[in-house]
Amino acid sequence: MKKLSRRSFLGNSTSLSLAGFFGMMPVLGKQKQQGDFVHHVYFWLKNPGSAEDKAKLIEGLNTLKNIKAIQLARIGVPANTNRDVIERGYDVSWLLFFNNLEEQEVYQKHPVHLKFVENYSHLWDKVVVYDSVDV
Amino acid sequence: MKKLSRRSFLGNSTSLSLAGFFGMMPVLGKQKQQGDFVHHVYFWLKNPGSAEDKAKLIEGLNTLKNIKAIQLARIGVPANTNRDVIERGYDVSWLLFFNNLEEQEVYQKHPVHLKFVENYSHLWDKVVVYDSVDV
Repeated sequence: MKKLSRRSFLGNSTSLSLAGFFGMMPVLGKQKQQGDFVHHVYFWLKNPGSAEDKAKLIEGLNTLKNIKAIQLARIGVPANTNRDVIERGYDVSWLLFFNNLEEQEVYQKHPVHLKFVENYSHLWDKVVVYDSVDV
Repeated sequence: MKKLSRRSFLGNSTSLSLAGFFGMMPVLGKQKQQGDFVHHVYFWLKNPGSAEDKAKLIEGLNTLKNIKAIQLARIGVPANTNRDVIERGYDVSWLLFFNNLEEQEVYQKHPVHLKFVENYSHLWDKVVVYDSVDV
């Protein structure tokens, strides 16, 4: 991702006085690093064949997306790849970026997250979590 | 990620109002989607206690970052979290985003990637890969 400099962004425009605003631009412009903390959860459904249960779980995960601490959220399903090293048994992938461990903990204890566990955990049989921090 | 041209960004306006500008903010603000294909690899080292081997593997992964098909690349190590569901046994996490399955395959067959496997695979004992596509 290219960083948008103020120059490339506005060219020579002089009709704008957005200096204060553009002071914040690098924060928006970079966006490479959306949180050093990567939280990746893989769900195995109790009824792996059930499209209905999978849709329900995805519905539940979508309710979490508005939790403010989350820098990036992705919901996925196994891709169409197949090699020995590839784990394809899970049903849903839930990938989150946080700024740090503390914000991940805020997410864990967030009422919306607790509600999600309460309402949807009956759907899954197994969860595997990989938490990692950038080197 | 789309390159933002000045035109698409500023339109034809020569006296842009803040309101007009902020109306376009979501374009920048979102930036969530950097490729629908998530490729997450976890490495278990042959010598898990060896800081040297870990550094070598990370050095190798860094050589891959310039492969064009990659939309986002993150190298991580297990975070300081500890619950029953958390897998903490791996040594290095390698997370990539691609635009699609085809570009992930381009990466797999890329000479730089093949060279990486040739030069660094002696370091790891086990690799687990999760490939997922966004729903």
